[in-house]
Amino acid sequence: MKIISFSHQKKSRWGVVNEGVVLPLNSSQYPTLLSALRAEKLQEIAASANSAARILLDQVEFLPVIPEPGKIFCVGHNYEEHRVETGRDPTRFPLLFMRVGESQAGHQQPILMPAESTQLDYEGEIAVVIGKAGRRIAEADAWNYVAGYSAYNDGSVRDWQKHTLQFTAGKNFTGTGAFGPWMVTRDEIADGEELTLETRLNGRVMQRTTTAAMIFSIPVLIEYISTFTSLQPGDVIVTGTPGGVGAKRVPPVWMKPGDKVEVEVGKVGVLVNSIAADATRF
Amino acid sequence: MKIISFSHQKKSRWGVVNEGVVLPLNSSQYPTLLSALRAEKLQEIAASANSAARILLDQVEFLPVIPEPGKIFCVGHNYEEHRVETGRDPTRFPLLFMRVGESQAGHQQPILMPAESTQLDYEGEIAVVIGKAGRRIAEADAWNYVAGYSAYNDGSVRDWQKHTLQFTAGKNFTGTGAFGPWMVTRDEIADGEELTLETRLNGRVMQRTTTAAMIFSIPVLIEYISTFTSLQPGDVIVTGTPGGVGAKRVPPVWMKPGDKVEVEVGKVGVLVNSIAADATRF
Repeated sequence: MKIISFSHQKKSRWGVVNEGVVLPLNSSQYPTLLSALRAEKLQEIAASANSAARILLDQVEFLPVIPEPGKIFCVGHNYEEHRVETGRDPTRFPLLFMRVGESQAGHQQPILMPAESTQLDYEGEIAVVIGKAGRRIAEADAWNYVAGYSAYNDGSVRDWQKHTLQFTAGKNFTGTGAFGPWMVTRDEIADGEELTLETRLNGRVMQRTTTAAMIFSIPVLIEYISTFTSLQPGDVIVTGTPGGVGAKRVPPVWMKPGDKVEVEVGKVGVLVNSIAADATRF
Repeated sequence: MKIISFSHQKKSRWGVVNEGVVLPLNSSQYPTLLSALRAEKLQEIAASANSAARILLDQVEFLPVIPEPGKIFCVGHNYEEHRVETGRDPTRFPLLFMRVGESQAGHQQPILMPAESTQLDYEGEIAVVIGKAGRRIAEADAWNYVAGYSAYNDGSVRDWQKHTLQFTAGKNFTGTGAFGPWMVTRDEIADGEELTLETRLNGRVMQRTTTAAMIFSIPVLIEYISTFTSLQPGDVIVTGTPGGVGAKRVPPVWMKPGDKVEVEVGKVGVLVNSIAADATRF
């Protein structure tokens, strides 16, 4: 099942995508995908979809799969090729930083290049959406806490990321983290099945790997993160980018207004965004 | 005006504190301090407090001033003495990391020492609560975006903080970040007035400074953070700890169950917490 959050006739909604149409699922009780996840009732709610209310997929504006997750944990240097290109030492533990919901963009929405930098980089990643609350989850039990998967472009403003030792500023510019197009529910992908991950910039392949090359697997990430905090339904783990980022190319490749960037995750889909200059004040 | 979030008869509420009593302010429209801040109507709502409904302050359980802020930005190495003791190079920019709401505790609630570490450290800090939405706020205009001030104990699990280059894990254990006892509204403290900050562990002074020793002032922090993200009412900036943390003492001083830690901010008040072993699974 593919679930999207979207805007239609200026209202924020969510629904199931099926063969070019969306069956809306929002109700007063479950106005958002996040509310359905938190009730741990996604499958039941989706089963009640009313096909009479369907909307053509090409008539909706995609929003980030979850516009305002409770928590977004991003993993750095989780593929060996990227660890080597960044010159980082191996670590025994996953490197984690956080994004705020406002830093996100939906499928087909522009990724925003801020006026303060020209060093806007792509990072194609696989996002895991949590479906069940837990703390100190054992690796062996971790798949049971997954609601589904999506693609993520962890867009990074590299000079701001390097202002200090902590990545926060460069990873949280408004409209730089694309999340979509949809969440594919866990039942469609076998636990631990190898998934491909590819990033294309203006059609050129820039990153290509599979989940088999991850340093810390999805269950290990869930165990580690849930050791210090409770994971809640709708929380998101963005599992890291492989080698080939623009910053480490010679010469560096930066995204600029008018570019088209795609992140394709096998069995999930293709997340497509253009780049636009950020002209907003809010 | 002093505003608290609290629990009374198992209900989460908020209100104004005045001479040992709380005047509750929650209504169906504004059930939380966060909702009142987001409506930018705190002063109006507080003016309507009904003194007939008052509760004795010693009968309430304090909650974190804002239990679930939209964003919590913490500043690292923002006092020269602490920068030097940590051996960090000076930077031209504020070092930022983030906390999640679940990592917080209220005044008089225990700070939790997790089973996974014995390296639990205190960091006394001044918290700034945002009162008005803005992006790219100029330093000269920044005070207008402040709703008020509180004390914060940015409790840190040092070994987990050092697992990787990013501080996330060690700064986000559940129940380690104490926030309280209340927010003192901006009208009670002149913009930029020098405030004292002192941390005591079992009565012994461990940290002592004033805001005059900050490397990046509150307006500079607001300008910097709002460059990359919109600041929203109820967002919190935890402005950094001075020298004297436990990890840098010889031998190191770690907090342990039964300890009492206090963070006192001049013109604001004293945030008091005991330390307890974390025995919970959620």
